Amino acid sequence: MQLHNFNAGPSILPKSVFEETARGVLDLNGTGLSVLEISHRSKEFKEIYAQAKSLVRELLGLDDRFAVLFLTGGASSQFYMSALNLLPDDGTAAYLDSGSWSAKAVKEAGRYGTVDVVASSKEDGYKHIPKGYAIPESCAYLHVTSNNTIFGTQLHDFPEVSVPLVADMSSDIMCRPIDVDKFGLIYAGAQKNLGPAGTTLVIVRKDLLGKVSRDIPTMLDYQTHIDKDSAFNTPPVFPIYATMVNLKWLKENGGLEAAYTRNKAKAEVLYNEIDRNTLFEGVTATEDRSIMNVTFVLKNEERSAAFVQQCEEAGCVGIKGHRSVGGFRASIYNAMPLASVEALVAQMQAFESTHG
Amino acid sequence: MQLHNFNAGPSILPKSVFEETARGVLDLNGTGLSVLEISHRSKEFKEIYAQAKSLVRELLGLDDRFAVLFLTGGASSQFYMSALNLLPDDGTAAYLDSGSWSAKAVKEAGRYGTVDVVASSKEDGYKHIPKGYAIPESCAYLHVTSNNTIFGTQLHDFPEVSVPLVADMSSDIMCRPIDVDKFGLIYAGAQKNLGPAGTTLVIVRKDLLGKVSRDIPTMLDYQTHIDKDSAFNTPPVFPIYATMVNLKWLKENGGLEAAYTRNKAKAEVLYNEIDRNTLFEGVTATEDRSIMNVTFVLKNEERSAAFVQQCEEAGCVGIKGHRSVGGFRASIYNAMPLASVEALVAQMQAFESTHG
Repeated sequence: MQLHNFNAGPSILPKSVFEETARGVLDLNGTGLSVLEISHRSKEFKEIYAQAKSLVRELLGLDDRFAVLFLTGGASSQFYMSALNLLPDDGTAAYLDSGSWSAKAVKEAGRYGTVDVVASSKEDGYKHIPKGYAIPESCAYLHVTSNNTIFGTQLHDFPEVSVPLVADMSSDIMCRPIDVDKFGLIYAGAQKNLGPAGTTLVIVRKDLLGKVSRDIPTMLDYQTHIDKDSAFNTPPVFPIYATMVNLKWLKENGGLEAAYTRNKAKAEVLYNEIDRNTLFEGVTATEDRSIMNVTFVLKNEERSAAFVQQCEEAGCVGIKGHRSVGGFRASIYNAMPLASVEALVAQMQAFESTHG
Repeated sequence: MQLHNFNAGPSILPKSVFEETARGVLDLNGTGLSVLEISHRSKEFKEIYAQAKSLVRELLGLDDRFAVLFLTGGASSQFYMSALNLLPDDGTAAYLDSGSWSAKAVKEAGRYGTVDVVASSKEDGYKHIPKGYAIPESCAYLHVTSNNTIFGTQLHDFPEVSVPLVADMSSDIMCRPIDVDKFGLIYAGAQKNLGPAGTTLVIVRKDLLGKVSRDIPTMLDYQTHIDKDSAFNTPPVFPIYATMVNLKWLKENGGLEAAYTRNKAKAEVLYNEIDRNTLFEGVTATEDRSIMNVTFVLKNEERSAAFVQQCEEAGCVGIKGHRSVGGFRASIYNAMPLASVEALVAQMQAFESTHG
């Protein structure tokens, strides 16, 4: 049975990426060595790494103001690293609280300076993206979560502010083109649109560094990794390799403009069905609906387990909502084909036929 | 041509590990999903993770006093995390300086308390392991580097001290049985004896935690990862999976006693040739010679490039010494077969025939 993988992350990647990386595990490009046993200082890995960075630059349109790093520790580590590197002791940073991950970012940053939560949708169960807020005049940056994986909301327009944006893009990076001029720092755990779990992409505007006076452990200082080109210590070779292979696929399939067109089309098919189907309904503000994580519920929640089971029997796996919110969540990242979304829609329609 | 991979890390792993993990990248145990796309909260990953932890416990003989964690960031991150978690502000920790990595550990720990370097072989170019030192009476722990990857020395007997040892075992973990009662914390980047690069094994005695009062970022607090069983955030799924497959291989091949017997035999063959061959000589104190990283030089260093080239032509790759010390280094980790060591010895003998 063909599976349709709607997991929120780690998540679906293109089949060709699995095939190419499996070959690399056996023999990397005819070198006679596995990608798992090559030195991180070998010519082979240097090429992989250079290609991964160059693909990030090309796909996102980054110029030399930005450094591209492949670190580890996930977005959860960037919650404190970003503030540690960018927020002076006597400074203020503005944070937009649009979901659980934003709240965690707020918590970790608070130990390094003043954190001003300029707006929050927590009271609303994070069902919408807060809008119409002002930010403190002299803040170092505005931190946003571009896509709220758990709740299924997304920033469709990045705020127009006078300070650099610091953005956790873990669950929607590379799903669409962005205006990089707005950003001072972008970070993303790889395990959604970038590659497998195990590396964290960090894109930082170099001129923002060196402005805090605190003592930073060497490994937590972005400048260390810039100076050593992410090889201060052994980088996560395989996750970076698989990310490179996946970004190559993304480029070959038209880059971010084409991905955005495909992603909007997939999301539209699924949201249309949620709105049409008499048994289901969406849970987030319509204008903030994510094109990556589609959340919905059965109006009669007692049937939820039956729907999950029916989906699984039809090969649609990973649609249970996050344990903190329940309901359903279909994650439809870049690698998800339209046919898989249609397979899920078919299950929703079949469920309506049976239970409607 | 069959290659013999003498790289210092990332390094050789058993061929069967490459084969099994490549299959997992295509289809994990018949699930129809790649190991790269399974959720870290799936039954499949929970089993992988439980098995990896259980193999670590079984192979090292760890009881319930110890927590086993798979983190990221390498030993370089443990240099500060260990002190951050175990060294009180007004406390002292003893450090044995036996190589470049020890020196880095000293540097990173120094920001959290008093670091007392009780002995150092730096003046000697780290060619031996310091012995015969005393440690401060009330220190929190003694930090040692069990094997000095760059210099080719190894602690053959762990110090008899009254405080717990904190040990960076990155390059010799699981090469031999150890007396776990001596240790409060053991950490190791995976990319030598454990698996591919991308995860860091941390073994910590739980009763040593909670004794520092400082504010620790959530991700840097060992207790976070104990409480959440290393799934506070998304763990590096593939590196942990490949580590599990490799530890399974180690167990199937007799565990640490058998590995130790094989490792000593391989090291003996190589050191015997270094001592016998008229062109080569060892560089470290004989009693401290590492059974993992064998360092040696040509008495006539002008011929070094010629020897490296000859070796590479014969399939012996990765024998160039670390860029900071030069010469040669043959890393002969657990997965290195005796036949590969013999292949290198044959090249040394051939070089002697030609140039002797």
